[in-house]
Amino acid sequence: MIEPVDEQARAKAAEQQLQLTKPAGALGRLEELGNQLSAISGLVPPPSPMPALVVVFAGDHGIHAQGVTPWPQEITRSMALTIAKGRAGVNAIARTVGADVWITDIGMMAPVAHPAIRQRAIARGTQDFSIEPAMTRDQVDAAIEVGRHTAAQAVAAGYRCLATGEVGLANTTPAAALISVFTGRSPIEVTGRGAGSDDAMLAHKAQVVADAIALHGATADDPMGALAAVGGFEHAALVGLILGGAEQRVPVVLDGVIACSAALVACRLDPDVVGYLVAGHAGAEPGITAALETLGLTPLVELGLRLGEGTGAALALPLLAAAAAIPNEMATFADLAQEG
Amino acid sequence: MIEPVDEQARAKAAEQQLQLTKPAGALGRLEELGNQLSAISGLVPPPSPMPALVVVFAGDHGIHAQGVTPWPQEITRSMALTIAKGRAGVNAIARTVGADVWITDIGMMAPVAHPAIRQRAIARGTQDFSIEPAMTRDQVDAAIEVGRHTAAQAVAAGYRCLATGEVGLANTTPAAALISVFTGRSPIEVTGRGAGSDDAMLAHKAQVVADAIALHGATADDPMGALAAVGGFEHAALVGLILGGAEQRVPVVLDGVIACSAALVACRLDPDVVGYLVAGHAGAEPGITAALETLGLTPLVELGLRLGEGTGAALALPLLAAAAAIPNEMATFADLAQEG
Repeated sequence: MIEPVDEQARAKAAEQQLQLTKPAGALGRLEELGNQLSAISGLVPPPSPMPALVVVFAGDHGIHAQGVTPWPQEITRSMALTIAKGRAGVNAIARTVGADVWITDIGMMAPVAHPAIRQRAIARGTQDFSIEPAMTRDQVDAAIEVGRHTAAQAVAAGYRCLATGEVGLANTTPAAALISVFTGRSPIEVTGRGAGSDDAMLAHKAQVVADAIALHGATADDPMGALAAVGGFEHAALVGLILGGAEQRVPVVLDGVIACSAALVACRLDPDVVGYLVAGHAGAEPGITAALETLGLTPLVELGLRLGEGTGAALALPLLAAAAAIPNEMATFADLAQEG
Repeated sequence: MIEPVDEQARAKAAEQQLQLTKPAGALGRLEELGNQLSAISGLVPPPSPMPALVVVFAGDHGIHAQGVTPWPQEITRSMALTIAKGRAGVNAIARTVGADVWITDIGMMAPVAHPAIRQRAIARGTQDFSIEPAMTRDQVDAAIEVGRHTAAQAVAAGYRCLATGEVGLANTTPAAALISVFTGRSPIEVTGRGAGSDDAMLAHKAQVVADAIALHGATADDPMGALAAVGGFEHAALVGLILGGAEQRVPVVLDGVIACSAALVACRLDPDVVGYLVAGHAGAEPGITAALETLGLTPLVELGLRLGEGTGAALALPLLAAAAAIPNEMATFADLAQEG
């Protein structure tokens, strides 16, 4: 059950910002963000500190067979293991910002044994959606449920802020397909280079996306059907994580194009979800821009990252932490008057 | 003695980035920033963690008498005291990002007794530069020396990254004057609203700046003369801090328009300084954009802050920390091959 964010708390928080010892509005977007954290939590001032968790889902994709990325599928396994060992980009950034990282196998080609990998595989890779739907409806339901349950577990463990992460070779292709379906933009507009497609591969990738949307008749009017047809396990799990974060009333920080595609699906399923979302990083993928425009979100950071894993969302976490700390810690004009 | 940054270390760092387990360039500006940290320190990988200090200088300005801000001069004292007590915006953000804050009285109207305020006042406010030079050359030398010595003390105390901060009612007016002189832009182009000037006050402020530059014949060919004529104590102390940071081979993160004006002076005094600088935050003040263009720097964060104090620079510190952590902590392709 998702409740709309608390607009009364947001208004009260905005009122309280005016009491802090600074010119009105002088902390710019940090003030709006702090007010959003009050709207999400219903608390004025918002909770601070706000322990944060980067939730990474790892999966593989049948569409990889269509030559949509220059990289071999085995890299998914290698990256998942590196994250589990704490030695990937997302781990370095998460440690820097004081966040933890969970990694879940939601459907890699083969199991990867490591104590830090949560084993929740729905299947060993999705189907090739240029031929058949990527997932069954039951698989989509199951993947979403893993995401929702992960959000609930995280909040039960004390985390108060979730950041999205993913790893999965070829997963920008289903993301582009979902973004095209849910923004109404053409595949060529929202398909990007992912981890390094050249011009010819990019054109081919956009054609694969266009053909698949036509083949399955994927439409925003049937979000679960579209997700099953042209999505992926990470995408579905992130839909669940986003819905679960909103259910738990914690902010969910979006990373890159995969998270943006999942956010579009989640917000189509329940428009109240968008109030719980924060766009972490504006990436190089054109689909991110299209998705964030449709969602009405403005990214916090723009540093040209295109690694995925949750790196962009993790980088934005200190900005949320600062936005939460300010109304908790800054002196008010009344304090000054009292202290002389 | 300022040495140029170490271009060999930068090149070696760029080479090492290619060994990390990610597509080349996938961490975008974080990679360039990491390479700059190697160039600054001469170390590959760069030092990490990198203890950070926000250095705030507080001063008052004779030009306040000309009606260039809607706020009373007493606010300088109040803000300095709030910072000393750890209850200002910069303190909340610094705590969030794990940085410390030092505050120094470099020339407020009256002494403010608090154990956390470093007492280094050059004089009790500058002179009104619409009538006479703001400072004598000796005062400028003394303020720069305080800044340089502060940088040396900070590095001796273990800090490896300096962020600039300041507080001083009316101090965006001398900043605009310096930026006009050192960028060659007209005063009307580089004068902003500071903490809240309306249209009429903004036009007046730009005229005050233009008249003062003409009165004193301030020119970039005599940087110390221009700084004395139309600068301020914080501005001069930050020139010293920037020079001192470069001498100590640590990065100096610029905050807003005051820091940008000081950076222009420092880089005019020694062009090798620019390699040590990182632009933290793009602010609302037009002078920031003009100064950063002249310096060739691109800000890391853009959140519409206009508070000063060092808040924008402090917000950028986690990005530097992440940039330093990545080459220290990420697995290399060789690691993966070895581990299987």
